[in-house]
Amino acid sequence: MKRLLIDKKGRRQLVDEGKDLHTHGGVLKEAELAKINYSGFIKTHTGKVFFILKPSIIDLIEKMEKRAQIVYPKDSAMIVGLTGLTSGSRVVEAGTGVAGLTLMLAKSVRPEGKVYSYEIRSEHQEEAKKHLEEADLLKYVELKNKNIYEGIDEKELDAVILDLPEPWNVADHARKALKFGGFLVSYSPSMEQVKKFVLSLPRNFQDTTTMEVLIREWEISEQRCRPNTRMVGHTGFITITRKMSE
Amino acid sequence: MKRLLIDKKGRRQLVDEGKDLHTHGGVLKEAELAKINYSGFIKTHTGKVFFILKPSIIDLIEKMEKRAQIVYPKDSAMIVGLTGLTSGSRVVEAGTGVAGLTLMLAKSVRPEGKVYSYEIRSEHQEEAKKHLEEADLLKYVELKNKNIYEGIDEKELDAVILDLPEPWNVADHARKALKFGGFLVSYSPSMEQVKKFVLSLPRNFQDTTTMEVLIREWEISEQRCRPNTRMVGHTGFITITRKMSE
Amino acid sequence: MKRLLIDKKGRRQLVDEGKDLHTHGGVLKEAELAKINYSGFIKTHTGKVFFILKPSIIDLIEKMEKRAQIVYPKDSAMIVGLTGLTSGSRVVEAGTGVAGLTLMLAKSVRPEGKVYSYEIRSEHQEEAKKHLEEADLLKYVELKNKNIYEGIDEKELDAVILDLPEPWNVADHARKALKFGGFLVSYSPSMEQVKKFVLSLPRNFQDTTTMEVLIREWEISEQRCRPNTRMVGHTGFITITRKMSE
Amino acid sequence: MKRLLIDKKGRRQLVDEGKDLHTHGGVLKEAELAKINYSGFIKTHTGKVFFILKPSIIDLIEKMEKRAQIVYPKDSAMIVGLTGLTSGSRVVEAGTGVAGLTLMLAKSVRPEGKVYSYEIRSEHQEEAKKHLEEADLLKYVELKNKNIYEGIDEKELDAVILDLPEPWNVADHARKALKFGGFLVSYSPSMEQVKKFVLSLPRNFQDTTTMEVLIREWEISEQRCRPNTRMVGHTGFITITRKMSE
Repeated sequence: MKRLLIDKKGRRQLVDEGKDLHTHGGVLKEAELAKINYSGFIKTHTGKVFFILKPSIIDLIEKMEKRAQIVYPKDSAMIVGLTGLTSGSRVVEAGTGVAGLTLMLAKSVRPEGKVYSYEIRSEHQEEAKKHLEEADLLKYVELKNKNIYEGIDEKELDAVILDLPEPWNVADHARKALKFGGFLVSYSPSMEQVKKFVLSLPRNFQDTTTMEVLIREWEISEQRCRPNTRMVGHTGFITITRKMSE
Repeated sequence: MKRLLIDKKGRRQLVDEGKDLHTHGGVLKEAELAKINYSGFIKTHTGKVFFILKPSIIDLIEKMEKRAQIVYPKDSAMIVGLTGLTSGSRVVEAGTGVAGLTLMLAKSVRPEGKVYSYEIRSEHQEEAKKHLEEADLLKYVELKNKNIYEGIDEKELDAVILDLPEPWNVADHARKALKFGGFLVSYSPSMEQVKKFVLSLPRNFQDTTTMEVLIREWEISEQRCRPNTRMVGHTGFITITRKMSE
Repeated sequence: MKRLLIDKKGRRQLVDEGKDLHTHGGVLKEAELAKINYSGFIKTHTGKVFFILKPSIIDLIEKMEKRAQIVYPKDSAMIVGLTGLTSGSRVVEAGTGVAGLTLMLAKSVRPEGKVYSYEIRSEHQEEAKKHLEEADLLKYVELKNKNIYEGIDEKELDAVILDLPEPWNVADHARKALKFGGFLVSYSPSMEQVKKFVLSLPRNFQDTTTMEVLIREWEISEQRCRPNTRMVGHTGFITITRKMSE
Repeated sequence: MKRLLIDKKGRRQLVDEGKDLHTHGGVLKEAELAKINYSGFIKTHTGKVFFILKPSIIDLIEKMEKRAQIVYPKDSAMIVGLTGLTSGSRVVEAGTGVAGLTLMLAKSVRPEGKVYSYEIRSEHQEEAKKHLEEADLLKYVELKNKNIYEGIDEKELDAVILDLPEPWNVADHARKALKFGGFLVSYSPSMEQVKKFVLSLPRNFQDTTTMEVLIREWEISEQRCRPNTRMVGHTGFITITRKMSE
């Protein structure tokens, strides 16, 4: 398990259980951290305050060593919400990457559902496994070292969710693997990929929509209320479609 | 249960089981609809095609008779995603309204969690109950005919989520009712409410962020790829904060 | 000349000098309107108030009979601002359409500059001429019934501004017609056109940027401050590039 | 005068006439720069290319030493466009700051109009004067070392444009100084200022709108078309209103 430490300015870091934390304001000993046990705050000898919490899924995702580009939490929240995933849902995802999206999916379908996650790069799988264990979600995920362009093993799925360079190679596999009414989702950074994917869809898929999710954060204080000067202008386009015939 | 019928243009309607559907293209008899059983399509005598599906949570929310303003699915998806709700989570929500947000919350915490939903207007409670039954989610929700401004009965909650005209009246109740690390969320259409809420927060709440979620839909076809001319410019501001001390 | 009448709700209409205005609240006689002479208000016999003003360029553009799609004022304001047009600038524009952009350009380059506006559809030219006369700007514009795909007659231009289905057909003509440092601008609704245009640019053009301009309007009142529920999500993409070698 | 040098990556710098340019790739001598004379390119001895141009107004604004917060070009372009400024317009502006907005206004009203620019901080006036001279626009501007909260000297103005911490102190002065139909504009970063300004407006002002201008830039290449990852999320809110009675 990892501890989440947040300072007064909202900066956060994860610390493995069993390890000390070295800060600019001094060292925090593991024994002291353990005493707080995920629910309190601690001060360094210079007086700097750190709150200690159990990290949320979002905290874990945002602190991942990002060897691969991840699906942003705002986007995975939207994908989970709009496809109606819930406990018991069975979902195929590809590629696993470092498991950013996998964490959100597993959290949504647990305890009765399952995520089948395809990835061809074995180094990513190691990383993904570590992240899922840290979040105690590994048992809801089957990590598969397979190329999804060659086919999907599962049947009667609720959703197939793609974060791949060539999602159009999976459209027909998804058609066979989804149950009637099931969702096919693709996440792509670039408009060409979106277009090629949408135009490749078999007629079995209907009710297709493509969207972007923009988050605008505000600064709220006694003196002023205003949007932040800087914002994330783009992550990826989300396309959602639904299998409407066999 | 209700059937979702979608035509070729993506227009959708819900039909109660046991009822015929009257369309511009002719009547569709219940007996015929029942044969399709949520997985196929049907044609009227004039040839108009309707796909028949089990409605998703989003379908149900979007077709609600909106006697009250609802939390938009894009916003409830973000709230659920960013607070890390999962099976087993215990959440207080107020006001219930017609249960738009309640549906999303219940879907996210089922089967092991619970939503406690406060509402003072009894006519809304009736409507809410009907919507939860239709979505088969009533058993995960306790509908409470109480004024949350006067207090929260539950303890050790994972989240308190407010869609109320005066959320600042609940901040201190939420402080007592949340577990350490739990989330307090407020959804307000207007900036004055946001400011008053944020400035009213006891110091126990830290790591406060206020955001807007903007969805931009695209038209994708062989001939042209472009954002839709019209978009929803505003629904509400979401403020999320976290209890960091007792 | 036309009079602009604005009611208390901000609804506006243009009335030709010499004509009565027929409103739901009663008739306003030309003689009465003439007395106000662009600077006051008038009441109908039912008490409805109309403010009477000289219309601004924006008022004229927004009330045009839109037989053709126009460049939105927000976009033409940005084009004029970012290309540095000023009195004395010489600009080629195509197509004229109903002269929405032409009005903005003429206003910006007058009294010493000139707009050369190409259009192949003569019915648009008639309309354009009428709009320019109404705004008293015709003398700064040369309306040309020519196909700009076949060439540009002018030399040493400050800017070439295109609102055309196939702007890539003009890139090389623009190269010859622009002075060193001059701007080539293209306005297109769809991403394919943008891509094809940008990739077609001769190497003489450098410092290319493509942007969208989004305007978000707010409702401000004692009771509430919030963005409008509806907004324009898309008009067109603006690409601006600059001739950097002969 | 200054020369604008742009490298292949679009990075730009201004060099005073009479000065050498020291770059990572070597020194460019004034004599060589002078030979190009604002219309060509030059190579350093390591082969790095710089295009040399006459800077546009926007180039000058963006390279200003920003001792004061400036009105962004996207916002000043919109203000100029929506108020219909043109040669001959007479405009009051406050405060001058380092003359970012002043440059845009002067360019728009020249050669027949005038900008009266109020500023109480004399150090800003020096800077502003330098910037206006560089852009050859000083003769269209009267720099006034006066506090606009105490009154406006001019009459029958086309527009009054405010970039001030307390714009509500100027509303009544503007009412007296504007001609019928003239525009009053205020630019404020924070929502409280917007609200206080709008609610302070005398009834003589009607047709009030408040807006934000968001610019989204795109990356366009053979391989990919996508919005930039980062964007400016906020600069200021623009409020425009119009004098509709004396």
